[in-house]
Amino acid sequence: MRIIDLRSDTVTKPTPAMRRAMAEAEVGDDVYSEDPTVHRLEALAAEMLGLEAGLFMPSGTMTNQVALMLHLQRGQEVIAPKGAHIYEYEPGSLSVLAGGVIRLVEAPYGVPDPEAVRSAIHTSPHQAPTGLIALENTHNSAGGTVVPLEAGRAIQQVAEEAGLPTHLDGARLFNAATALGVAPAELAKGFRTVSICLSKGLGAPVGSVLLMPKDYRAEAWRYRKMLGGGMRQAGVLAAAGILALTEGPKGLARDHQMARALAEGLLRMHVEVDLNSVQTNMVYAHVPRAADFVERLRQAGVLANAMGSRVRFVTHRDLADEDIPAALERIESALHVV
Amino acid sequence: MRIIDLRSDTVTKPTPAMRRAMAEAEVGDDVYSEDPTVHRLEALAAEMLGLEAGLFMPSGTMTNQVALMLHLQRGQEVIAPKGAHIYEYEPGSLSVLAGGVIRLVEAPYGVPDPEAVRSAIHTSPHQAPTGLIALENTHNSAGGTVVPLEAGRAIQQVAEEAGLPTHLDGARLFNAATALGVAPAELAKGFRTVSICLSKGLGAPVGSVLLMPKDYRAEAWRYRKMLGGGMRQAGVLAAAGILALTEGPKGLARDHQMARALAEGLLRMHVEVDLNSVQTNMVYAHVPRAADFVERLRQAGVLANAMGSRVRFVTHRDLADEDIPAALERIESALHVV
Amino acid sequence: MRIIDLRSDTVTKPTPAMRRAMAEAEVGDDVYSEDPTVHRLEALAAEMLGLEAGLFMPSGTMTNQVALMLHLQRGQEVIAPKGAHIYEYEPGSLSVLAGGVIRLVEAPYGVPDPEAVRSAIHTSPHQAPTGLIALENTHNSAGGTVVPLEAGRAIQQVAEEAGLPTHLDGARLFNAATALGVAPAELAKGFRTVSICLSKGLGAPVGSVLLMPKDYRAEAWRYRKMLGGGMRQAGVLAAAGILALTEGPKGLARDHQMARALAEGLLRMHVEVDLNSVQTNMVYAHVPRAADFVERLRQAGVLANAMGSRVRFVTHRDLADEDIPAALERIESALHVV
Amino acid sequence: MRIIDLRSDTVTKPTPAMRRAMAEAEVGDDVYSEDPTVHRLEALAAEMLGLEAGLFMPSGTMTNQVALMLHLQRGQEVIAPKGAHIYEYEPGSLSVLAGGVIRLVEAPYGVPDPEAVRSAIHTSPHQAPTGLIALENTHNSAGGTVVPLEAGRAIQQVAEEAGLPTHLDGARLFNAATALGVAPAELAKGFRTVSICLSKGLGAPVGSVLLMPKDYRAEAWRYRKMLGGGMRQAGVLAAAGILALTEGPKGLARDHQMARALAEGLLRMHVEVDLNSVQTNMVYAHVPRAADFVERLRQAGVLANAMGSRVRFVTHRDLADEDIPAALERIESALHVV
Repeated sequence: MRIIDLRSDTVTKPTPAMRRAMAEAEVGDDVYSEDPTVHRLEALAAEMLGLEAGLFMPSGTMTNQVALMLHLQRGQEVIAPKGAHIYEYEPGSLSVLAGGVIRLVEAPYGVPDPEAVRSAIHTSPHQAPTGLIALENTHNSAGGTVVPLEAGRAIQQVAEEAGLPTHLDGARLFNAATALGVAPAELAKGFRTVSICLSKGLGAPVGSVLLMPKDYRAEAWRYRKMLGGGMRQAGVLAAAGILALTEGPKGLARDHQMARALAEGLLRMHVEVDLNSVQTNMVYAHVPRAADFVERLRQAGVLANAMGSRVRFVTHRDLADEDIPAALERIESALHVV
Repeated sequence: MRIIDLRSDTVTKPTPAMRRAMAEAEVGDDVYSEDPTVHRLEALAAEMLGLEAGLFMPSGTMTNQVALMLHLQRGQEVIAPKGAHIYEYEPGSLSVLAGGVIRLVEAPYGVPDPEAVRSAIHTSPHQAPTGLIALENTHNSAGGTVVPLEAGRAIQQVAEEAGLPTHLDGARLFNAATALGVAPAELAKGFRTVSICLSKGLGAPVGSVLLMPKDYRAEAWRYRKMLGGGMRQAGVLAAAGILALTEGPKGLARDHQMARALAEGLLRMHVEVDLNSVQTNMVYAHVPRAADFVERLRQAGVLANAMGSRVRFVTHRDLADEDIPAALERIESALHVV
Repeated sequence: MRIIDLRSDTVTKPTPAMRRAMAEAEVGDDVYSEDPTVHRLEALAAEMLGLEAGLFMPSGTMTNQVALMLHLQRGQEVIAPKGAHIYEYEPGSLSVLAGGVIRLVEAPYGVPDPEAVRSAIHTSPHQAPTGLIALENTHNSAGGTVVPLEAGRAIQQVAEEAGLPTHLDGARLFNAATALGVAPAELAKGFRTVSICLSKGLGAPVGSVLLMPKDYRAEAWRYRKMLGGGMRQAGVLAAAGILALTEGPKGLARDHQMARALAEGLLRMHVEVDLNSVQTNMVYAHVPRAADFVERLRQAGVLANAMGSRVRFVTHRDLADEDIPAALERIESALHVV
Repeated sequence: MRIIDLRSDTVTKPTPAMRRAMAEAEVGDDVYSEDPTVHRLEALAAEMLGLEAGLFMPSGTMTNQVALMLHLQRGQEVIAPKGAHIYEYEPGSLSVLAGGVIRLVEAPYGVPDPEAVRSAIHTSPHQAPTGLIALENTHNSAGGTVVPLEAGRAIQQVAEEAGLPTHLDGARLFNAATALGVAPAELAKGFRTVSICLSKGLGAPVGSVLLMPKDYRAEAWRYRKMLGGGMRQAGVLAAAGILALTEGPKGLARDHQMARALAEGLLRMHVEVDLNSVQTNMVYAHVPRAADFVERLRQAGVLANAMGSRVRFVTHRDLADEDIPAALERIESALHVV
């Protein structure tokens, strides 16, 4: 039986074109800033996102954490939407690396109320001063939900009035852009720094890019080195990353359709899904004893992740057209096993 | 004019065989511990070094720093030979990541006197307690010098008596093994953790491996994730790393001969070189106004690194047989330009 | 007009007896562990709280943070009730000093649901592992509310089952003991570490004590030194601290009665107060535009603290019997100024 | 037998006048910046040192470390003279609190060569950037030696040319001023921040002051709070500190004479002492098996500290005139015990 892997879009494997590009990549020593393919990738990402400069790193955790180090002084707070990846799934990094503090605000579908953000800003000297406001688009733990343009602008406005910088965790920004039918640069606009991942739905094997103003880059480079993120002939990875940026976005609409089909199928089986949250390539289902259910799914040939009391399904380019119907059948059978 | 790059063995580019291996690598999501090629690399490295477990990371800085995080509690000291890479060239990492403190001991040719190490161990509660003793083999800033077997054993003995663990920065351990004509495992023996680099003289584009006892690996994995070193389909890199381990060491003897030839040529030109320190693939020359000299070399088509008052030349597999004689000619011409 | 200061019980000034004790204190160099008065204070505190060892420090922030450093490895989480002082009012300390992460759980009146705590414990390697469960008794930002004996036991039970240590921030533990009519040791029982403040309602000018198992003390001492908390002839402070411990608790019942009277007076004026939360020496009132109101109070001769959208009033031993009625009159007049 | 305590000038006990001042001190809550005696002390210290603002803290370690946090970004280096207290005796603080890195330069008698400092400044992006240059006057581990005015100016000049700030660890600055016969402000001049201790030779029981430009104070205050150094009615300590500043310096010349007499006496017994280093109130003797010797001294009624292979004797105001001759007799007898 072919396993249908719906755990994450990170499981996508490099395409033959990517493998070819990697094999043929022109490379240099990127720790000496001499890898031409890395330079091309960084320039391309900066152009596509509308920011001045890019810096290639091995993971989205590193791009986010370097951004936090750039923005936060020791002991400052970052305001972030509840469930933010930088808090939940970059374990301990914010504290250990930046000496930063998380300040979560409620964020239905990943969108915080601007007034809630405003009133979370600290000015009392008895509390940790606010140093940054962060958003995540799409917002993973809220369901892969999209932060609309106006919602982003409203938070930027609050930040501006308070003289604070903003960071966008855009690990899946291309999914958001696809869902909204806008260019990624539209969604990146107005953020001081933006991180994007090449290795999720876009399909590259490894890598993320931090986009930023030109004069931030030397410091970002220093922090990347400090964390051990300097890679030598990184052009072999960047070559695949360039294809992820140029070719990858085309496939995302299909991923979203698959997620929609999956969600509707689950609802038909009376599995609890909030259809309003199914905006891109994720479906979160509320199932009693999620971990047990995920184990039964695994035995039926469907992989998904239990996240607390929820089960997460993620669609991606490595799924075949018939995988969603097949997965639904297997899920249904797993539901009836007790 | 073909540029002769003697800055570092990190400039080596992947061989055609490595590129092919990358293109054909069987991969999985290594953040889910499912990349078979990464597993093969880690197992191979562990076997070759004689330690129980391996963990693949994007850089030697990261493998060293994760080791420091494993061994040191906040505010503890690591005793290391003067000039140690973990202090000089992993900028700020030890302090920011591990909250650790460096305690340098004199180390002619990279070999500290065991008595000096013993008396550097702190037991007074008024000072930072010693948590680790580290060595570097070969020792880069001492000249790429080899720490002989007995010298390593003597330091291990001191550590054992004090109940302290040991770490070996083996970024160029295969060079040391080649110079001594012993297996790398002989040199790794007795160290609690060992880091090796695949991307230096061994020729892989990216990657290092931390070797350790089995029961350290979960914590090392957690720290790697914290630093943003978790990579998805890392097998594309690991495939080249496997060739670096199996094929790379064969070329090192030639690298060492080239370094010797270069050193002797420099001496003939009355450039100050300590021939005793030329034990592997490095030559450090003492030249007045090193930075200016390196710039004149660059104009003459030879790349080298100025390191303080010294100029470092490193030989590697990407050099042709005629490169050393050619480099010597160019160096001589640069000496006479004023 | 005599100012009525209801901002905090930290404004209490040393009594004549304390001043005399400070002037006559037998002292030594406590950094050499030779101050007999500090030793007496630490032994007394340990005995009163029922733990093995005590360590004197300049503030409650330091005793809490040293405890967090003792319990947490880098990047581990501490589960704490929402509004916890260690998060809200020890600004950045947890992140910068311990590299720790906060995980807040809902806690009505400062009492978290044991099931909520249990399900906040992390075991996934993708998230920051839980290292500690902390409570605060009384819980300042919940209203100076008391965590009852059984509630503490229930959380200890959860911790035990998970193999986790517990810390009690007992800055105002004597208020809780007074409110419940039990010995402080009853409330401290079962916690691995407990911090108490001498300088709040108990009236000492400066100082807090961390209570802990005997074999934790050397490490706590090291961390205190690291933070710069080692003080030389600290016996001058400890002498007042001993009186705070022996004499201070007697006055707390009166403080609580004053708070009750104040709360009832505010309710009579239709100021929003949750009387259920008025359990010790604090009254939180919900007032529109709290900061403005506090400023008007100040002009009327009453000092209080605006904390977000609330105004906090704290009663203490330096208030005269007539101060509460007088404060209520002044508050009423301030309410009618617009 | 009366014990003669020559371990440190930190063992000095508060004078009757200090005890009286503490008992009568006007106090307020200094965490609310309302303690008038603390304000007086901070203003007095700022005026005496010629800097704009002062901040009172519980220890010299804390004043130094807050200064390091003010000057250093994460991962930056502080250049300091070999043996610096901020490295040797503030254990782990620099790494854990500031994420800073030490860069030691040779410093005979505590005075580094300006050229050595200049060449220790890092500009390569591959190394930790220099963020601060620090001196220590008097330099404890070099013998309580004085950094002369011109030597300080020369280092300041290097710093200025490199655009770097300077910090002076002036824990015993009044000893240096006394030895040179200049005002302390002369020695503080030109340093960005200066820390002084009230509790060493000046005799206060507890406390140090960090002096700095006015616009640094809010950040210093924030860091002090982060470390748990905010104290409530700290005026009780500051009252003694004011006397330490006004009365304490008068006694230092006598301390220095006693040290001189002690050193000469030791030389007469053929104990190895470098008389050139005996410039203030310290005498370091080189004695085989220092720890054993210190133990024999203790049994003979003389307390001293073994520091590595040396024994340190420190003179101070609590010694009687006859104590030095008596100590010499006892030392002589201890020398002859074997």
